[in-house]
Amino acid sequence: MTAAAGDAAPALERQHPADAAERLAELPLEEARPLLAALPPRQQAQIFGYLEPGDQVALAEAMPRAELAALVSAMSSDERADLVRRLDAEDRAALFRALAHAEREDIRRLIAYPEGTAGSVMSSDYASLPPELSVREAIEVLRRIAPDRETIYDAYVTDADRRLLGVVSLRDLILAQPGTRVGELMVRDVITASADDPREEAARTLADYDLLALPIVDGSGRLVGILTADDAMDVAEEEATRDILKGGAVSGGSADEGLIAGLKSASVFLIYRLRIFWLVGLVFGNIFSGLGIARYEELIEANIALVFFLPLLIASGGNAGAQSATLVVRGLATGDVEMGDWMLLTAREVAIAGLLGVSMAVAVAAIGLARGGPEIALVVALAMMAIVLVGSLIGLLLPFLLGRLGMDPATASGPLVTSLADVMGVLIYLGIASRILAL
Amino acid sequence: MTAAAGDAAPALERQHPADAAERLAELPLEEARPLLAALPPRQQAQIFGYLEPGDQVALAEAMPRAELAALVSAMSSDERADLVRRLDAEDRAALFRALAHAEREDIRRLIAYPEGTAGSVMSSDYASLPPELSVREAIEVLRRIAPDRETIYDAYVTDADRRLLGVVSLRDLILAQPGTRVGELMVRDVITASADDPREEAARTLADYDLLALPIVDGSGRLVGILTADDAMDVAEEEATRDILKGGAVSGGSADEGLIAGLKSASVFLIYRLRIFWLVGLVFGNIFSGLGIARYEELIEANIALVFFLPLLIASGGNAGAQSATLVVRGLATGDVEMGDWMLLTAREVAIAGLLGVSMAVAVAAIGLARGGPEIALVVALAMMAIVLVGSLIGLLLPFLLGRLGMDPATASGPLVTSLADVMGVLIYLGIASRILAL
Repeated sequence: MTAAAGDAAPALERQHPADAAERLAELPLEEARPLLAALPPRQQAQIFGYLEPGDQVALAEAMPRAELAALVSAMSSDERADLVRRLDAEDRAALFRALAHAEREDIRRLIAYPEGTAGSVMSSDYASLPPELSVREAIEVLRRIAPDRETIYDAYVTDADRRLLGVVSLRDLILAQPGTRVGELMVRDVITASADDPREEAARTLADYDLLALPIVDGSGRLVGILTADDAMDVAEEEATRDILKGGAVSGGSADEGLIAGLKSASVFLIYRLRIFWLVGLVFGNIFSGLGIARYEELIEANIALVFFLPLLIASGGNAGAQSATLVVRGLATGDVEMGDWMLLTAREVAIAGLLGVSMAVAVAAIGLARGGPEIALVVALAMMAIVLVGSLIGLLLPFLLGRLGMDPATASGPLVTSLADVMGVLIYLGIASRILAL
Repeated sequence: MTAAAGDAAPALERQHPADAAERLAELPLEEARPLLAALPPRQQAQIFGYLEPGDQVALAEAMPRAELAALVSAMSSDERADLVRRLDAEDRAALFRALAHAEREDIRRLIAYPEGTAGSVMSSDYASLPPELSVREAIEVLRRIAPDRETIYDAYVTDADRRLLGVVSLRDLILAQPGTRVGELMVRDVITASADDPREEAARTLADYDLLALPIVDGSGRLVGILTADDAMDVAEEEATRDILKGGAVSGGSADEGLIAGLKSASVFLIYRLRIFWLVGLVFGNIFSGLGIARYEELIEANIALVFFLPLLIASGGNAGAQSATLVVRGLATGDVEMGDWMLLTAREVAIAGLLGVSMAVAVAAIGLARGGPEIALVVALAMMAIVLVGSLIGLLLPFLLGRLGMDPATASGPLVTSLADVMGVLIYLGIASRILAL
């Protein structure tokens, strides 16, 4: 295989790092490692950055310590912090011994930010400038530091304490007179995020203001890193996936990471674990539906036509609830809806669900007439109206309620709302039936 | 109100355009228009670009023709094409008469690309360079054209026919020797998208390769525009919203645009229209469940305990199906799963759903024993296994089937899968019950 590896290495070198990473990922570990090792460290680091987390860890563990240290030194600060976070304690300690002091400290500082914060996805490879430099000097500094920086297109102007004073773009620098001071040219109102902010909020701020990079500051306004647009895009995609998995009741806290990293490559057992939790949980909800039905067994025996409408009515409530929940959860995620909007939206929901309920009642009354006569038609029409209204309100309000309780509104998934609406649907339907048919 | 407008204008001027737009959007049209008109056209255009489409059209229609023409001339090419696309024929014609020939042609060319294509979201304000320029000359050219370009950080090297030869970044230009030719410095393997590609594919390519801008070419390799990272982020968010709305059965073709633009501000009637379509549609599915039940009315009358398990069993199948569909639809959207993967995933799904079915059967058999004795326990356990397996396979395969039929896999929404699984659940449960209880 050595000859083949030797043949393939130059080809790997000429590819875009993203494509090279894709090719490497398809190879067995014992072929991938020497192929990567044959490249210069900077190129290794670029390719490595595009590999999936699991492949990164496998490769890192298979590498001799010195080889890994050279690779890690060449990686961008955010990517190497992510890698170190995933290594076990032993590999981490071994790697740390082989790294220079400054790099070790940089990694330690970055991995100290908890998962999910802006600090945990930021890079410390930003370009900063003192305000007293001239434009000519600033461009010279940027030219010198460019190879080690994620971006030099936005440079951050800081004082001696690293406090953020302003931002200046390379575009503005090359348009300005060479003698102008950076302090005069910089924009003072810098859009920033705090390192403790949720990472999805920082990503949203970057998107809302169309930035290439968002500076991240600590509690005292000191610049500690930047979130770049490409990382913000990854954060936004992961958060969307996370919400969608919750919405589909495939979610279980930290185990989600395995799914988000690769839906296709996730193991049977991981998926089983994430799905069984919700499936069993929802059974308990449906036991209440069953108990509701059992309470009305005599009514059902006397009016067996009622059973025909049972799936239809409870499904309609569940579907209406899933629709409302979908709208609210997505609105909250994109920032279009805020937690304080619940009253306004409830008013609108009553109007919408009222219209929906009446339309559905008309449809179902016709079927009721045909299958059970006027009394059954009345029962199913009234039940449909009430069920669609109640289901819609459950779907609308549950995300807000979870949010108030400090939980993720996206946990108000379709299946959870559907189950709640099912229980309510059974009770409403058979409750109405028992009143009207007993007349 | 003129005095107030005069007071507020400088404040608006000093804000970030995104914040200024948010403030403007809160004002009534008659106040917003003069506030905006008081600013220089370039600043007007920046703020205007951050307004929601609906607000843009309202403002544009309220503006005198010359004022609108000045604003449109200052807007970036992609944003003004979007605006013109939304104007009615009369306003569009009036605007075109007030614009310079070159601008009119630029807009005409951009709006010719159908909605949803990369061409419809690209900008023609890119920076291009001939290959024979020296680095010094190239920087001079970029400095001169910078004010009218979306970005000068990536410059595209083209021949006399506008055919794309390579790309050179401003970073590389300022790092290079001033005498080097652009043609020597440029990267030749340029990642591109075709103007006819779906816009979400172009956005995904940009994200996969961590680009600041993606060049868009026509059928003969001529550069026609760029997709910038900020626009790609907007595309990705809109596509995620679109998929989530479909997943929640709140979707109806072009009417979705109104919801995507603003979930909160959408009218009662729009939401009613989007929801009633699916709610009524799904009723028909549930009629089949009802008919299934009606076929077994005698069996149910003789074994009324069966009704207790009905909601629980059919809900479990629906939930399992919603889980599978969620995983597949998201995997297809992120590119993690491809259409050809269906066989591989079916094999994995049988293993997962088998495990899930057995676990659920054990749980439900215990309840069955308690409420109905060993025969009922056997019926519900067998039914649970079969229903979870069938529900999961429906959820897994439906998105692939829709994709093969040329439809969006995301249409395999939770509620649709749930309804299909419901019908199957009723038939499986009562079918098994009739065999075993008749023994």
